[in-house]
Amino acid sequence: MSEKKRRAGAAVAGAASSSKKPRAAASYAESLRSKLRPDATILATLRSLASASSSKSKAAAKSLADHDPSADPTSSYIVVADQDSSSVTSRINRLVLAAARSILSGRGFSFAVPSRAASNQVYLPDLDRIVLVRRESARPFANVATARKATVTARVLSLVHAVLRRGIHVTKRDLFYTDVKLFGDQSQSDAVLDDVSCMLGCTRSSLHVVASEKGVVVGRLVFADDGDRIDCTRMGVGGKAIPPNIDRVSGIESDALFILLVEKDAAFMRLAEDRFYNRFPCIILTAKGQPDVATRLFLRRLKVELKLPVLALVDSDPYGLKILSVYMCGSKNMSYDSANLTTPDIKWLGVRPSDLDKYRVPEQCRLPMTDHDIKVGKELLEEDFVKQNEGWVKELETMLRTKQKAEIQALSSFGFQYLTEVYLPLKLQQEDWI
Amino acid sequence: MSEKKRRAGAAVAGAASSSKKPRAAASYAESLRSKLRPDATILATLRSLASASSSKSKAAAKSLADHDPSADPTSSYIVVADQDSSSVTSRINRLVLAAARSILSGRGFSFAVPSRAASNQVYLPDLDRIVLVRRESARPFANVATARKATVTARVLSLVHAVLRRGIHVTKRDLFYTDVKLFGDQSQSDAVLDDVSCMLGCTRSSLHVVASEKGVVVGRLVFADDGDRIDCTRMGVGGKAIPPNIDRVSGIESDALFILLVEKDAAFMRLAEDRFYNRFPCIILTAKGQPDVATRLFLRRLKVELKLPVLALVDSDPYGLKILSVYMCGSKNMSYDSANLTTPDIKWLGVRPSDLDKYRVPEQCRLPMTDHDIKVGKELLEEDFVKQNEGWVKELETMLRTKQKAEIQALSSFGFQYLTEVYLPLKLQQEDWI
Repeated sequence: MSEKKRRAGAAVAGAASSSKKPRAAASYAESLRSKLRPDATILATLRSLASASSSKSKAAAKSLADHDPSADPTSSYIVVADQDSSSVTSRINRLVLAAARSILSGRGFSFAVPSRAASNQVYLPDLDRIVLVRRESARPFANVATARKATVTARVLSLVHAVLRRGIHVTKRDLFYTDVKLFGDQSQSDAVLDDVSCMLGCTRSSLHVVASEKGVVVGRLVFADDGDRIDCTRMGVGGKAIPPNIDRVSGIESDALFILLVEKDAAFMRLAEDRFYNRFPCIILTAKGQPDVATRLFLRRLKVELKLPVLALVDSDPYGLKILSVYMCGSKNMSYDSANLTTPDIKWLGVRPSDLDKYRVPEQCRLPMTDHDIKVGKELLEEDFVKQNEGWVKELETMLRTKQKAEIQALSSFGFQYLTEVYLPLKLQQEDWI
Repeated sequence: MSEKKRRAGAAVAGAASSSKKPRAAASYAESLRSKLRPDATILATLRSLASASSSKSKAAAKSLADHDPSADPTSSYIVVADQDSSSVTSRINRLVLAAARSILSGRGFSFAVPSRAASNQVYLPDLDRIVLVRRESARPFANVATARKATVTARVLSLVHAVLRRGIHVTKRDLFYTDVKLFGDQSQSDAVLDDVSCMLGCTRSSLHVVASEKGVVVGRLVFADDGDRIDCTRMGVGGKAIPPNIDRVSGIESDALFILLVEKDAAFMRLAEDRFYNRFPCIILTAKGQPDVATRLFLRRLKVELKLPVLALVDSDPYGLKILSVYMCGSKNMSYDSANLTTPDIKWLGVRPSDLDKYRVPEQCRLPMTDHDIKVGKELLEEDFVKQNEGWVKELETMLRTKQKAEIQALSSFGFQYLTEVYLPLKLQQEDWI
């Protein structure tokens, strides 16, 4: 759509939507449109952001390498890493050979299993993620207390071996159903699967056991999904479903200047339909709420390979910030895998608590925080990843003081396309992220 | 993968997975592999199924046209239909002009709103779907009881008009946020939106108000999503996200012989990774659980345009059957839209209660039905859409008698690829659907 046409259309929607709302807020919101500079100016801003991010990533990559404790068994932390099938297979072979040798020498066999307990998880500020302290416990077969679990462990090792040999991927549920009698309950095979990841020092996706996917992506991105070349500028409004098995993703290419991480699919749809990525070259992705493993892996992969800045568009509530924390620092129950699941240095673009007043979001589009919201907000203030960022602390304090929250969709009160035509361009122009 | 390679691979997995399971069941399951005839024979079966479905669809289309009550305002039923933007716009214009004329003549204005109450919904066996009995109530502005609702109705009409003029799509949530003060609660704007659909005699998607999408599709299908040509054989393992706005879907082409409707994404992933559609030309889609509106619209569109038989692969539990009923007959709260959302004549391929014994699914992979399951199962026996199909009644009775249920994933107990290599090909070969 031409600039002129776009503006004319917006004026129509503005007029249509202002009849019953406080006129002051709506006309102020419209007045922000005049603050927008030409797209070329905004693009120049984004280009310098992208190149800064790229050089910073290189520095960060170096510092990660300096601290990388995954390879070293004498290190005090466990950080598992992606491994290819043959490497995982040979690690399993080594484990099984060691067990066989131990049995033949009359000592039975025992697995050394790293502890994944919460008390064993620490946040490393240098790495900006949660990792596991190296503390292993023995799981001997010749012991009434551990015989069953040792058997389950051996069985999971053998199943993973079979999956890798066939070159396929399965879900946790599939794995459970191969031996319901032994596993009894899926939580047991799931837990041992995590044990096996830690024992082998590889990610769960390296084991070819995948989670279901729910994320979608559109924008300036080309990649291969299981060998099929996907051009994400040609995926219509629906977008491309993010593949469940990240190791089948290859050939990532992009001319984007940033990655726009969106919490909700409604906002994603608006951005996709307006082809926002054609005006401001970017990659847009969403996990449709709580981030799933596949989307987190995909985002990290994009960030690592493309070295692009990641800007996040989430609801202005504690839950929005919680979602950012999962992308950035991982969730507690997969801490051992955090290195491969987390994307550090995500910028909080919006909707931020301070935006509510800055953009004069009408009172009736704001929602009062519930007691539970306030409790979660206060807990977040205690989290290391929030404390680290002064801007975030201030925003969170604003939220807790005003006791107000708002969804991304609240911007629709200024017109359905206000998000893509005014709010986001202005945010980008003003480099208004923290 | 060559036939030989596939069989060799399966033997490996079979060996790996049989160690702890009742050997009889596993070896029986393996023995079924030998029953498989060459793919060419199975394909011949499918070809005749596809051509039968195509000619039957023509007959059905005729009978639908005979009964189609949507166009006729004197008919006793309301069945809304898809309308293009200009047609919806002119319907809104007509409504508003009538209101204006009424106001100018001193009679104020009033909307005639069809009742969408449950008591007003009937199942029409001829059409095989739920429709709305035509019964309208007046919603005058000059009445304390209805003034607010009449205002909301007028506002929603004006918002829809603005959306259509801009040629965009919005979500229900967007619509709500354009006037929170008036709507108060999203349930109110949602309800009036449904009223407006009925008043205008068009589907909600014709109003360009869309639901979020969660379905994915792969297989022998090419279509355009907002002008982008999508080849679903080249969508990797992740598949293509089904677009939220069906009216942007065009140019549907396919050389598939059937549509495989899958309940769960785990089974979808197995089929996609094994590229099942290359062996047996088909279109595979899933809504990942409870069907969303976008997936239902998409399935119907495929069925209508391609006239292919639809085979369903769901869990063997009442919930699986319930999902089939939503695809086939619609859900009660969108009955007015049922003509456009439902896909009649879906065949129940599996997993059926009788399959559990037929394929000797091990006891430990079956789950006992809960009291709630049994209650839902008994309710389903009373539903017209079940009663109509003798085979379904028998299966449901088997389920309720054995009090056992099973997931699609239970077939993994015979090897991870048993589903795609033995179970489904044998089902297709034996034309084992009801």
